[in-house]
Amino acid sequence: MPERRFSRRTFTTGAAAAVVAPAAALSTSAATRPDGEVEPKGVVKNVTMYAEALPNNQLGYGLEPGKATIPGPLLVIDEGDTLVIELNNTLDVPVSIHPHGVDYTIDNDGTAMTDSVVPPGGKRTYTWSSHAQRERSDGTIVAGSAGYWHYHDHMVGTEHGTGGVRRGLYGGLIVRRKGDPLPDKTFTIVFNDMTINNKTGVAGDEVPNFTAKLGDRVEILMITHGELYHTFHLHGHRWADNRTGMLTSADDPTPLTDNKICGPGDSFGFQVVAGELVGSGHWMYHCHVQSHSDQGMAGMLIVQNPDGTVAGKHRPMAVPKAAGKDAKGAEGAEDAKASGHDAH
Amino acid sequence: MPERRFSRRTFTTGAAAAVVAPAAALSTSAATRPDGEVEPKGVVKNVTMYAEALPNNQLGYGLEPGKATIPGPLLVIDEGDTLVIELNNTLDVPVSIHPHGVDYTIDNDGTAMTDSVVPPGGKRTYTWSSHAQRERSDGTIVAGSAGYWHYHDHMVGTEHGTGGVRRGLYGGLIVRRKGDPLPDKTFTIVFNDMTINNKTGVAGDEVPNFTAKLGDRVEILMITHGELYHTFHLHGHRWADNRTGMLTSADDPTPLTDNKICGPGDSFGFQVVAGELVGSGHWMYHCHVQSHSDQGMAGMLIVQNPDGTVAGKHRPMAVPKAAGKDAKGAEGAEDAKASGHDAH
Amino acid sequence: MPERRFSRRTFTTGAAAAVVAPAAALSTSAATRPDGEVEPKGVVKNVTMYAEALPNNQLGYGLEPGKATIPGPLLVIDEGDTLVIELNNTLDVPVSIHPHGVDYTIDNDGTAMTDSVVPPGGKRTYTWSSHAQRERSDGTIVAGSAGYWHYHDHMVGTEHGTGGVRRGLYGGLIVRRKGDPLPDKTFTIVFNDMTINNKTGVAGDEVPNFTAKLGDRVEILMITHGELYHTFHLHGHRWADNRTGMLTSADDPTPLTDNKICGPGDSFGFQVVAGELVGSGHWMYHCHVQSHSDQGMAGMLIVQNPDGTVAGKHRPMAVPKAAGKDAKGAEGAEDAKASGHDAH
Repeated sequence: MPERRFSRRTFTTGAAAAVVAPAAALSTSAATRPDGEVEPKGVVKNVTMYAEALPNNQLGYGLEPGKATIPGPLLVIDEGDTLVIELNNTLDVPVSIHPHGVDYTIDNDGTAMTDSVVPPGGKRTYTWSSHAQRERSDGTIVAGSAGYWHYHDHMVGTEHGTGGVRRGLYGGLIVRRKGDPLPDKTFTIVFNDMTINNKTGVAGDEVPNFTAKLGDRVEILMITHGELYHTFHLHGHRWADNRTGMLTSADDPTPLTDNKICGPGDSFGFQVVAGELVGSGHWMYHCHVQSHSDQGMAGMLIVQNPDGTVAGKHRPMAVPKAAGKDAKGAEGAEDAKASGHDAH
Repeated sequence: MPERRFSRRTFTTGAAAAVVAPAAALSTSAATRPDGEVEPKGVVKNVTMYAEALPNNQLGYGLEPGKATIPGPLLVIDEGDTLVIELNNTLDVPVSIHPHGVDYTIDNDGTAMTDSVVPPGGKRTYTWSSHAQRERSDGTIVAGSAGYWHYHDHMVGTEHGTGGVRRGLYGGLIVRRKGDPLPDKTFTIVFNDMTINNKTGVAGDEVPNFTAKLGDRVEILMITHGELYHTFHLHGHRWADNRTGMLTSADDPTPLTDNKICGPGDSFGFQVVAGELVGSGHWMYHCHVQSHSDQGMAGMLIVQNPDGTVAGKHRPMAVPKAAGKDAKGAEGAEDAKASGHDAH
Repeated sequence: MPERRFSRRTFTTGAAAAVVAPAAALSTSAATRPDGEVEPKGVVKNVTMYAEALPNNQLGYGLEPGKATIPGPLLVIDEGDTLVIELNNTLDVPVSIHPHGVDYTIDNDGTAMTDSVVPPGGKRTYTWSSHAQRERSDGTIVAGSAGYWHYHDHMVGTEHGTGGVRRGLYGGLIVRRKGDPLPDKTFTIVFNDMTINNKTGVAGDEVPNFTAKLGDRVEILMITHGELYHTFHLHGHRWADNRTGMLTSADDPTPLTDNKICGPGDSFGFQVVAGELVGSGHWMYHCHVQSHSDQGMAGMLIVQNPDGTVAGKHRPMAVPKAAGKDAKGAEGAEDAKASGHDAH
């Protein structure tokens, strides 16, 4: 296989996502790990985050006061980098932040059991580090931190953060490996029970659509939260079910997929070239559990032609018309469908 | 690893499956794709399909009028081939066909949102293409289309085809890669809520058993639909959890499995050598969710000796005796079990 | 990649686990398989097991009378070995033992349909064999038996063993490949509906905690049973989602994970180095389905420093206070949490 060469393009992010800019306080000094070994130099990125109340009983993380979003800011680092997060709690209950995939000492766990949560009005610093792949002395491999990860509250409502997660305290975390291709756009999609990114899909609370140009390298970070299992499906595009979504060689046995089962706490990601082999269009993504898509768990990856036009006919999907956020039965879905037909 | 050599054997198919014969109108001309590139030559297979009503409020796809089956005909192509499907709608409601895994332009999406469905009494042509693995100019790999895929209605009942899928409008789609071993027999198994291939497992509506000879290369295409998750389990046989079910080399890290979780819209497939290392017998396949198997989601892979005999004792499984198609509680399952014992 | 060399350390096992010692009756003679081929020599391990009643309407398998545990004894063999299990049924209903992953003829299926169960007061011998990886004559690979497997009853309650599994008749089965690293400790974790190893997590019925030293190679065998799907999450540690949990080379495309969806009959396993890159601490493992962890499906991997101390603060998790084993609603979980806070 030929060597991979990629131009380092600027990162663009989706609606409710913000890439962590290289922080003011950079450090390239080597870090000493809990096990006493010295980790190769990486960048230390300092981030200040705020846990805030949002309208409609929602909660969110943000990088500035009054700027909280659901999902919270997308955090992107390279293997070897360290994130130092100062979490400010503007809520009236204790809150925390707990990451998946990265390295941290137990006092950064973000749990009540380890007394690493933030009281109302308080602040706390969490340090998450990461590492590149390397060999142990016995010849086995320490897998690098690269992956499509995420973070979430582990304190609000219950000691497992059930209330915090339900109300929106979650976000994406990507650790990149040197040589991995960089995307043109990254979109974070969170199936949080019957919502996508806490949007119910009913009129006035539409789930996010994502727009890319034909040929854009689109990266999707898919996270699941809550109680329910889901199956993530994307029309017209497929990916390899492995670390990057891309095969590593002609003999790579990884299966290709366009539909993947996922449950709470799971995350995966992949890159697709928008419209590759299929062209421009309104390409649906949705949960393939039938009642879930019928009740609004469906959005669009809109792939534009270079001139901004979009191929094919398009009218909005039928969505449940009720304003309630409770899951509705099949009859409701059928009503909604009829309603959608009337409207077009 | 040595080069693979396989004799190109005739394809045999399971009960409700029909391989697409090379169509009358073959074409080997190169196709121009939506992105302007020219795809290497492949075969164009023309297929005429009919969406039809079946007894007991079921629906099915068939290759000829009056021949609809559940699942619909198994469609098998090689990477690079194109399927041109003329779908005739004999129903009194709009219907469509939507594929997983293959390439198609947005006007072939089979959805109401893209106005690509078939009105009652109408017909519409859908074109699905496929491609071999190749390299992009940046060195990354476009994974080939080979895989265990499927197709289904996306229109009946709701705009996600909830009613169509529930009533039987689905089928298997296999894309083969050059060099992949060919099976002696292919069986399509669809876990569609509490049914297998829309059979409930109660007396008079038995789920399919599949028969093979000891040593046959048996291919199973497993598809899930509906609302529920399942776990597919096969007694006495295992497969590698990758694209083909087979390892590619001695160092292939793919795990071996005999039990796999799956949700609606998922599909996977694999080949096993019938009875390899275990011999002839009635080898059960079933959903391993306990109440699902208890309520009838279990069938047999019957592996015969060369002389047609089958090793071991065998009596039918106990099945729920109620004729109703509703899921029954554990008590019902226990009753059924007792009944089964009495009967044998 | 360098050749792997491992010192063959003694196997240590977790609370409810017992490694099968090399049996009294060893055999190194080659076995003739059902297909007539001769399998390379392996060890035959003879094991006597007892299915027994336990307090609180539980059932268990044990290696000696009166010693049944939940999960049952951990069975560990090397590829090529054969297990000959004499199962003694001390219950007043028929019982059986059915394995995943290994080879057996149909009369060892452990099912009513094949008449291979054990009547009350009776005994029956089950033979499970295994095999190393090898090539078929057509160049495809017969994957070796190595894997994280399990066994369970297939008879009590229903013909799928629904009652037996629910009440505790299950255990772990590991088949090792030559060259695989050996663990210092192996822990078996079974998510059996709302329990872990049939422990409900309520006060007095705590789920198991597991203790290791910093740097220990800890192996986790994770099995799921019952009705529900789960997501297994481990704090501060990750593994490769493949056969061993470890990458095989620098280019291995296997994704790293710390949260994995699983359903009944599934099993997987992995090794982690306790506290690697994160240090000593009380590292939580739990089901990430929110209501499941809230209702008690959470325990600890306690990683001790060399001197026996454990880094970080720690207090017990809040657990549901009700003694009932029925799943409780979110309100109960919230009550329990408040109660937990009061208690500490």
